[in-house]
Amino acid sequence: MSGVDQTAGAGRVVTEYWAAVEARDWGALGSLLAEDVVYEVPQTRERVVGRDAYIRFNAEGFPGDWHLAVQRVVSQDRAAVSMIEFSDAGTSQPGLCFFDLDEAGRIARITDFWPDPYEPPAGRAHLAGRY
Amino acid sequence: MSGVDQTAGAGRVVTEYWAAVEARDWGALGSLLAEDVVYEVPQTRERVVGRDAYIRFNAEGFPGDWHLAVQRVVSQDRAAVSMIEFSDAGTSQPGLCFFDLDEAGRIARITDFWPDPYEPPAGRAHLAGRY
Repeated sequence: MSGVDQTAGAGRVVTEYWAAVEARDWGALGSLLAEDVVYEVPQTRERVVGRDAYIRFNAEGFPGDWHLAVQRVVSQDRAAVSMIEFSDAGTSQPGLCFFDLDEAGRIARITDFWPDPYEPPAGRAHLAGRY
Repeated sequence: MSGVDQTAGAGRVVTEYWAAVEARDWGALGSLLAEDVVYEVPQTRERVVGRDAYIRFNAEGFPGDWHLAVQRVVSQDRAAVSMIEFSDAGTSQPGLCFFDLDEAGRIARITDFWPDPYEPPAGRAHLAGRY
C-alpha cells in the first residue's frame, strides 16, 4: 500500500468508526479495532485495553440518546485526528480524538480529549474579542 | 504543488510555528501567518483577527517562563493538527491546535483547544482502569 493509499485509509477508517459509534453498531465497531487496542483519556487518566473491553466501555459507559456529527478529519499515513460535535439532552460539546492504525489498517490506539468551556485568563481581554 | 508536497508543507509550517512561539521570535512567527489570519479558542469563544493583533496576543497575553514541546503533528493537504505539551511553573498540560493554510502556504486559521483534567463521570469506573 502506498503512502497516499494509507493516508486515505486512516481517514476512511475513522469516518467508519464514528458512523459505527453513532449507530451503536458494536459489530461494525469491533471490525475496525485491533484486538489489543488501547484507549486513553489523558484528562481523566482512564485507560481501556483490548477490543472486547473497549466495546463494552462504549456500549455500557454512555447511556442516553446522544448523537455525534463529524466536523473534520485530518489524516496522514496511519494516523488521523477527528473533531466531532457530541450532543446530548440539548447541549453539545466538541470532542477531539487521535487515532493510530496498525499495519493491517485496524485502530490500535485512541487518544480522546473532551475540552470543556472555561473563562479566559485575566489580563488578556484587551487582546482578544469574543464570539 | 502536488498533494504530497502540500502535506509535507503543512506539517513543516506548523513545526516552524511552534519553534517560533517557543523562541518568542515574533518576526519568524509573523512570516508564517496570513495577513488576515483568524485565531479562535472554542472553549472561551475568544477570537483574534489579523497578523498584527495575533502577534500582540502572543507577545503580551502569555507572560512568564513557559515552554512547549511538540508531541506530534498530523497533516493532510493544507491542514495540520498539533499536540503539544505546555509547561509553566512546574505544571504541564496538553494543547491541541488545528491549522489551515492558504494557497500561499501561510497559516490562515488557527483553532486552539486546552483540555483540562476532569473527574471521570460516575458509573463507568468498572469499565476503565486509571493510569
